[in-house]
Amino acid sequence: MTSLHTLTGLGHIMITPFLPDESVDEDGLASVVDYAVGAGVSAVIPLGIMGEAHKLTDAERDLVVERVVSAVAGRVPVIAGCTAESTRATVQRVRRAAELGAAGVMVAPPRALAGAAGQQVAYYRAVCDAADVPVVVQDEPVTTGVAMSGATLGEIVRHPTAVAVKVEQVPSPTKISAILDANPDARCFGGLGGLYAVEELDRGAVGVMTGFALPDVLVRICAAHAAGDRAGARRTFFQHLPLIRYEAQLGVGGVSIRKQLFVERGIIRHDTVRGPAPVTDPRTVAELRGLIEDVEHG
Amino acid sequence: MTSLHTLTGLGHIMITPFLPDESVDEDGLASVVDYAVGAGVSAVIPLGIMGEAHKLTDAERDLVVERVVSAVAGRVPVIAGCTAESTRATVQRVRRAAELGAAGVMVAPPRALAGAAGQQVAYYRAVCDAADVPVVVQDEPVTTGVAMSGATLGEIVRHPTAVAVKVEQVPSPTKISAILDANPDARCFGGLGGLYAVEELDRGAVGVMTGFALPDVLVRICAAHAAGDRAGARRTFFQHLPLIRYEAQLGVGGVSIRKQLFVERGIIRHDTVRGPAPVTDPRTVAELRGLIEDVEHG
Amino acid sequence: MTSLHTLTGLGHIMITPFLPDESVDEDGLASVVDYAVGAGVSAVIPLGIMGEAHKLTDAERDLVVERVVSAVAGRVPVIAGCTAESTRATVQRVRRAAELGAAGVMVAPPRALAGAAGQQVAYYRAVCDAADVPVVVQDEPVTTGVAMSGATLGEIVRHPTAVAVKVEQVPSPTKISAILDANPDARCFGGLGGLYAVEELDRGAVGVMTGFALPDVLVRICAAHAAGDRAGARRTFFQHLPLIRYEAQLGVGGVSIRKQLFVERGIIRHDTVRGPAPVTDPRTVAELRGLIEDVEHG
Amino acid sequence: MTSLHTLTGLGHIMITPFLPDESVDEDGLASVVDYAVGAGVSAVIPLGIMGEAHKLTDAERDLVVERVVSAVAGRVPVIAGCTAESTRATVQRVRRAAELGAAGVMVAPPRALAGAAGQQVAYYRAVCDAADVPVVVQDEPVTTGVAMSGATLGEIVRHPTAVAVKVEQVPSPTKISAILDANPDARCFGGLGGLYAVEELDRGAVGVMTGFALPDVLVRICAAHAAGDRAGARRTFFQHLPLIRYEAQLGVGGVSIRKQLFVERGIIRHDTVRGPAPVTDPRTVAELRGLIEDVEHG
Repeated sequence: MTSLHTLTGLGHIMITPFLPDESVDEDGLASVVDYAVGAGVSAVIPLGIMGEAHKLTDAERDLVVERVVSAVAGRVPVIAGCTAESTRATVQRVRRAAELGAAGVMVAPPRALAGAAGQQVAYYRAVCDAADVPVVVQDEPVTTGVAMSGATLGEIVRHPTAVAVKVEQVPSPTKISAILDANPDARCFGGLGGLYAVEELDRGAVGVMTGFALPDVLVRICAAHAAGDRAGARRTFFQHLPLIRYEAQLGVGGVSIRKQLFVERGIIRHDTVRGPAPVTDPRTVAELRGLIEDVEHG
Repeated sequence: MTSLHTLTGLGHIMITPFLPDESVDEDGLASVVDYAVGAGVSAVIPLGIMGEAHKLTDAERDLVVERVVSAVAGRVPVIAGCTAESTRATVQRVRRAAELGAAGVMVAPPRALAGAAGQQVAYYRAVCDAADVPVVVQDEPVTTGVAMSGATLGEIVRHPTAVAVKVEQVPSPTKISAILDANPDARCFGGLGGLYAVEELDRGAVGVMTGFALPDVLVRICAAHAAGDRAGARRTFFQHLPLIRYEAQLGVGGVSIRKQLFVERGIIRHDTVRGPAPVTDPRTVAELRGLIEDVEHG
Repeated sequence: MTSLHTLTGLGHIMITPFLPDESVDEDGLASVVDYAVGAGVSAVIPLGIMGEAHKLTDAERDLVVERVVSAVAGRVPVIAGCTAESTRATVQRVRRAAELGAAGVMVAPPRALAGAAGQQVAYYRAVCDAADVPVVVQDEPVTTGVAMSGATLGEIVRHPTAVAVKVEQVPSPTKISAILDANPDARCFGGLGGLYAVEELDRGAVGVMTGFALPDVLVRICAAHAAGDRAGARRTFFQHLPLIRYEAQLGVGGVSIRKQLFVERGIIRHDTVRGPAPVTDPRTVAELRGLIEDVEHG
Repeated sequence: MTSLHTLTGLGHIMITPFLPDESVDEDGLASVVDYAVGAGVSAVIPLGIMGEAHKLTDAERDLVVERVVSAVAGRVPVIAGCTAESTRATVQRVRRAAELGAAGVMVAPPRALAGAAGQQVAYYRAVCDAADVPVVVQDEPVTTGVAMSGATLGEIVRHPTAVAVKVEQVPSPTKISAILDANPDARCFGGLGGLYAVEELDRGAVGVMTGFALPDVLVRICAAHAAGDRAGARRTFFQHLPLIRYEAQLGVGGVSIRKQLFVERGIIRHDTVRGPAPVTDPRTVAELRGLIEDVEHG
């Protein structure tokens, strides 16, 4: 299994499927894992924002990690989302995830670090000092409200345990350059639904971490780019861009629609989202279905 | 013990004391309870924002409720903060708190309800339908990002289980009037550190829920006002206003300073705050100490 | 000249070119107008956000409108951005723009309407009652902080002077449907750099108003769609999507880069942006230039 | 007349009175000036946020400065609010205000400086280099969205033309200390309606700039403090605190209520506020009137 220190390619941000009563659908988790691994992803990442992690209890988080680790069965690393609002709670989540078999963790900054740039490096140092597994730093200013500069992120990943940054700040190509200007050894992954995947890779990202519904497409783009076939990477990217763009538009509010697509494709059985959640517009589902037709068969 | 359906006076929003290693200080919790009950509060409220609830694990939340219920020993109701980001997780927290002996719960809206006014009443209806104990609705737009109108809040508390609104939107007197205009039977509590306590009571609030460091002052203000002695309530309020104002200024960022004061007064042993947290300015502590001198002995 | 009541197609949101000393480049304005009109746009729209209108004095705003009206010479309508922070100042701007020859105006809500849904219809009614020319309502929540619902916007455009809504709320296709559900007679234009142009048109938009650097592309997409050639519209859209997507990413911070492209294409002489403004990343310019190559010659 | 380089005491942030048709009430401006100067203020400050400057046209801004300068007739300095969204527009406003007789100007940062700490010093340097009169730097993060650190502000006022900082960031005493720690020669004024006036002065502020409706109270507090009578300053402050607190609560949304009070006191004739503006709650006016009774006659 790939060490997280050399990970490249696509890390698949997983949804958390639910049964109709909103309890965790354990079989669904296994099915999503099989789908992603079958598509060639380099890692699976449960308990991100798109995984509705903030809507789960601690016990349910443990259940998700256990079930995903078991379903993956060593085929790829599992990187568990472990963001919490205090150093201590984050460290507990990180250690628990490692105990349960996660190969690594992903940690976004607590909201208390908004407007406190001077404390950001120290926070990640404390978490990484206490972590038994590699840490992916999630730069997610829209959801967290915490802006971290390229220089700060470059500094954070000098810690041997901080293996990579997942970049979600728009414009992500520019942000990746800012991180690499500050620390040329930083390993960056793009995000944002893959909407700028080729520019992210061109700027020096080693891969992408996102939940786009057709992971094989991003796998192929990353593979072509890594093999030096930049033209091929762009061709595949441009071909699927209508769909990538459409999904990216929906953002995290789009989890309901992604689940509907996964139901249609037979990956999960229920499109249940934990409430309160935005109402789904059936016209949006139809539009998305049409785009998938277009890019797959057009 | 007072039913929450007729609760008046001061509900004391508790801090969560920690040992130097940032674990929960169980003896400290008992000591804070004794201090508040001794000051005459009508209820104690652990796991609010000032209680650093968002920095705790679920197991630690349970520990806090258990320990507070045990320390209170039936002298006043315990209202446990149970805010979570999904209906299901909130309901689980509410039920767990009831099992552990809480007489009621306090629930702020999940962030998903920001900009979704149409779903706010339904959210609280679902929570209240599933709750075994009375629910206090926390109107806290600054922290949650969720604005709930007076009409919405008035509607929410028509549910027999939704016993009161804790109002934190500035200006709170106006907000209380808006709620009571919509629903004259609504029971409102003021907040905001007590900074507008007399106006809140004048507008029809039945009490105040806040963590001000000298709870006996607010207890006396509420009691005088309830007894029809509005002039006496104002006199006590105005006398302590320099201090109330100063503490209110610090907001939730002031938890560190409040803990230092509690240490000085012998209520808890450690002023530990869970990181990451703002650095304390020693001049602020000195200023606050001077103000306490002024209002207590001046 | 097309009446604004029946306007369709592309409204081109203009940049405001500056000389190196940051004064308004009057010849540059004329050149941008010629470029846009030559590309087949249905209207030119100076003094939007991308036009740096908020960085101009009132006298400079007048200068821009005069110069644009003169350069257009009746070939297409001029719709002048007239957003201001009070009803009275907005009305003054609207009347002044009409005096100077604008065929219509575009008005975003003042910030005071954030969180004041009940006053939004009245505000636009007051502006429209006083306006001598048609008003385009700009739904721009990111910049203004003002969220207006589909129902509110549908109501606003019942006023005979309020001829259309320019939609900038993400996801724009869903927002257009919400407006049309509330008022089937509403005339909507898409925005957001054209990133969802085909879905906006599919949902019932009559055109797009945006500043995308290759206006002829959007002109052709709108024309094909209007002629019933939805497949052709999509083909053109998908072909140019890599570039549309890239430009859209930059948002209003991208004005500097757009100006650099306009300089390279010989449309304006100086890429000067009024400070303070974000620093331009030369790698971004190179990336964008490469994408233009790709879509134009690839 | 006091040089702005040695200004102390109260700078009175003026309202802009309007006639019932919302045009500028020129006689009202003169009357407000006379009221403030009669109360002993050290400077009058038109065109701040409470002066509804953002709701005026450029021509109306000029009119206000002219009329205030004329009414003041050299008795105290006039400091004109000149905030604009570009360096060039700000400089134009600053120069125009100086031409019209303002002794100094007050400038808050443009929104483009939010999240751009590296450009803040340069912005103020450019403005001050071009200014003919002293510049007061307005630290107003709530309205502008721009956070400037104590170190940045300390650096900005090293420019000989940048004579002072008006501090509005909560908690203001701490912020004043941070500025003075960075630059012991910085001249700071408190703000926030005077709610922390004595702490601001204790921390080293040389005065206060705010629009509190009873300016003579703040004049006396500043004078006593400057004369070394800290106890007297506190006594006066504490006595009026119920009212100061109440007014501060209303914030800039309180301009309507302040105008109603000024009408009742015979200072202006009309309580007109430029729309769109929040609706006034008559209970709030009554409450405020009662508090004035209390502190003046109680």
